[in-house]
Amino acid sequence: MSLDSVLARIDETLPEATDRLIKLLRIPSISTDPAYKSDCARAADWLVADLRSLGFEAAARPTPGHPMVVGRKPGPGRHLLFYGHYDVQPVDPLELWHRDPFDPAIEDTDKGRVIRARGASDDKGQLMTFVEACRAWKAVHGDLPGNLTILFEGEEESGSPSLVPFLEEHRGELSADLALICDTGLFESSRPAITTMLRGLAKVEFTIRAAGRDLHSGMYGGLAQNPIRVLSRILAGLHDDRGRVQVPGFYDDVDELPEQVRAQWQALAFDHKTFLGDVGLSDPAGEVDRTPLEMIWSRPTAEINGIWGGYTGAGFKTVLPAEAHAKVSFRLVSRQDPGKILPAFRAWIEAQLPPDCDLVWTDPEGSPASVMEIADPAFEAARGALTEEWGRAASYVGCGGSIPIAGYFKSILGMDSMLIGFGKDDDQIHSPNEKYDMESFHHGIRSWARILARLAA
Amino acid sequence: MSLDSVLARIDETLPEATDRLIKLLRIPSISTDPAYKSDCARAADWLVADLRSLGFEAAARPTPGHPMVVGRKPGPGRHLLFYGHYDVQPVDPLELWHRDPFDPAIEDTDKGRVIRARGASDDKGQLMTFVEACRAWKAVHGDLPGNLTILFEGEEESGSPSLVPFLEEHRGELSADLALICDTGLFESSRPAITTMLRGLAKVEFTIRAAGRDLHSGMYGGLAQNPIRVLSRILAGLHDDRGRVQVPGFYDDVDELPEQVRAQWQALAFDHKTFLGDVGLSDPAGEVDRTPLEMIWSRPTAEINGIWGGYTGAGFKTVLPAEAHAKVSFRLVSRQDPGKILPAFRAWIEAQLPPDCDLVWTDPEGSPASVMEIADPAFEAARGALTEEWGRAASYVGCGGSIPIAGYFKSILGMDSMLIGFGKDDDQIHSPNEKYDMESFHHGIRSWARILARLAA
Repeated sequence: MSLDSVLARIDETLPEATDRLIKLLRIPSISTDPAYKSDCARAADWLVADLRSLGFEAAARPTPGHPMVVGRKPGPGRHLLFYGHYDVQPVDPLELWHRDPFDPAIEDTDKGRVIRARGASDDKGQLMTFVEACRAWKAVHGDLPGNLTILFEGEEESGSPSLVPFLEEHRGELSADLALICDTGLFESSRPAITTMLRGLAKVEFTIRAAGRDLHSGMYGGLAQNPIRVLSRILAGLHDDRGRVQVPGFYDDVDELPEQVRAQWQALAFDHKTFLGDVGLSDPAGEVDRTPLEMIWSRPTAEINGIWGGYTGAGFKTVLPAEAHAKVSFRLVSRQDPGKILPAFRAWIEAQLPPDCDLVWTDPEGSPASVMEIADPAFEAARGALTEEWGRAASYVGCGGSIPIAGYFKSILGMDSMLIGFGKDDDQIHSPNEKYDMESFHHGIRSWARILARLAA
Repeated sequence: MSLDSVLARIDETLPEATDRLIKLLRIPSISTDPAYKSDCARAADWLVADLRSLGFEAAARPTPGHPMVVGRKPGPGRHLLFYGHYDVQPVDPLELWHRDPFDPAIEDTDKGRVIRARGASDDKGQLMTFVEACRAWKAVHGDLPGNLTILFEGEEESGSPSLVPFLEEHRGELSADLALICDTGLFESSRPAITTMLRGLAKVEFTIRAAGRDLHSGMYGGLAQNPIRVLSRILAGLHDDRGRVQVPGFYDDVDELPEQVRAQWQALAFDHKTFLGDVGLSDPAGEVDRTPLEMIWSRPTAEINGIWGGYTGAGFKTVLPAEAHAKVSFRLVSRQDPGKILPAFRAWIEAQLPPDCDLVWTDPEGSPASVMEIADPAFEAARGALTEEWGRAASYVGCGGSIPIAGYFKSILGMDSMLIGFGKDDDQIHSPNEKYDMESFHHGIRSWARILARLAA
């Protein structure tokens, strides 16, 4: 069977694949620091050369920032676009690294062999799992599988300033049937997973204003409106006693979890006690009738991210401030529209303002949730491939945060994404001593080979 | 009648009295700035010499800071202690003054003649009203009236660091039957008033702590406790919908206003629309069943003076903070004890803390209200004297803030105070172009003469 040959080839050539990853890791492609601009270009060129060696038509496309690497291999069947990013986080504080972050090494640890370097897990090691799967496929079959486009970004760690214009400009070329994104992790570091739900975000800063200036509480206290008190009352009413958000219409576009996904999440046996215990907490504080995983993956939230007003320095000033401020954000799910949620929030606040208070509304913005169409058979196919490779039932999972690229692929290119990655919780991405497990790398490559066999063969 | 002679003498010698005030105003006795230390001493010495010229046994008593001026004239009857302060506020911003703040001048304005200088109203002009009344009395009677002690402080504008130790050390000498304090104003700039109620203050800073570190709302939002939300709910519950403070026992030691005082306050026809309108407000925001004057003078309050937590800088961080903070103060009335109110507040908060939250309690402190015994006939006598002098019914009034000296006189020396002053709302005390109306100075002197005639003759 040809898939077996590809998998065997992957096993045999793992040392060479590791060497290639090490070469890529040696290039300090820190996108946020202008001092490394030529290194970013060098990493892009290295990838272009590697993709060309596999038969991709590839080029480093200039942007106002760092280049985009685009590779294309036309072919029959479903058009798949694979996304990764070749840029890495800065390395400071350097003194906390056990070795030079750009002098990669294979280390034996009590949890197994790891590749230690900046970018090993985020995202060079992950993106190379796909490239190496393609390489083994080519070696066995003489050609790349199916209908592939590759997109490697060089600005993911610095806010992706060129991404949206690039996607808009190259919409025709990049609009595939499905995106594969390799920038996530295994569930609880062990179970293969496909992220199919990403929460959206709506956020706003606002100010409650009362008197024209700060007042002395000896002179005015008891008579004059205190905007901190008004703000506290509004924020206190944001949730009811069961943890439900009280903004009218907030849940109108929230769907219940599909039964298939709910069953998988239950099977995950998520250990919320450990998850919370790691940060000094013990009790889930969300909606009372929801499981912890629902709270962070599939239920919308309202959170106060910042609050300030009055005198906040050392000592005491018995002031009644003129203003009080808050930053509030909502994690959105399903079909919740930030363009409806934020105005509803504003109207809800305005309806509660007492006399002498007014509202200043600053920088409202948001993006909707991403919910993938798992009815597309590609999802079950990939899940089956992952289950076979890892010997454990792969699961559809959610993600409490946003992964902007998936949202852009949907909104600009009209395609869903399968987010599949092999990182572990202890990979120390964005921190000193980042690593990627050899297990992640090896089984990651094999996972893509199995997925390609099902989706692109 | 000898009072008439004293009043006539005051009228005749007003130019000389004004000249003396101008001499005192020329001394830049700014207590908070060490550069003016010798000027403070000079002002004290000037006052000592003036008091001695009237027959007081007087001295500048050293303290670790600026001297206290103490004058004594033993005699028959009730022992009265008169208090004022000879130090003044700094003058910056100097460029906003129309003339040198220490080169006093008599100016004609469209509201009448004024003495323009730093300290003209606060408090040199006011303290000299009493000294000049004594001088006229002496000129007519050949002796000072009654049984008098004078106390002029030199550190009132810099926090009175030496005051408490000085009062404690000289308790025997300074404990009179009644204090007269001249450092307040006319009610609404026109009606003579005796301040008989001063609110106390209890204050504390506290922190609600949840997770061991700030959390990302994408990862934890909906599941983890947010201390800003907890704090908002607690602060929102501090008042009910009718404006009453909800801390158990808060009103236990709050007395209703004596009928006599209530009637006087009603007669004041306080224009709260203008009072609030001046700072951009319109509606009284306190207890719904209380008048505006009650709200600021005789009812206790709970006010949030500061709040902060989470991300408060520019832009947005979707953080769930580990901590949220507030500064809360209570204005106290009647017999409310800060030593009972603050622990009750703490217990009330702790009873509301959800799991995973704890409370940090920082720097609780407080002082009780001052409520004078107006049943003492001296109060009605003084009120009658003021009514006669100003041709308008004098009134007992309250003060929403604290005047610490009155509290110390009560707690250390065991005496009540009559707070009588002649300042006006537009005197610009603590600001550039401070002034004292000649009307305040002239009728202030005459007021004291009338009061001395009733209390000390």
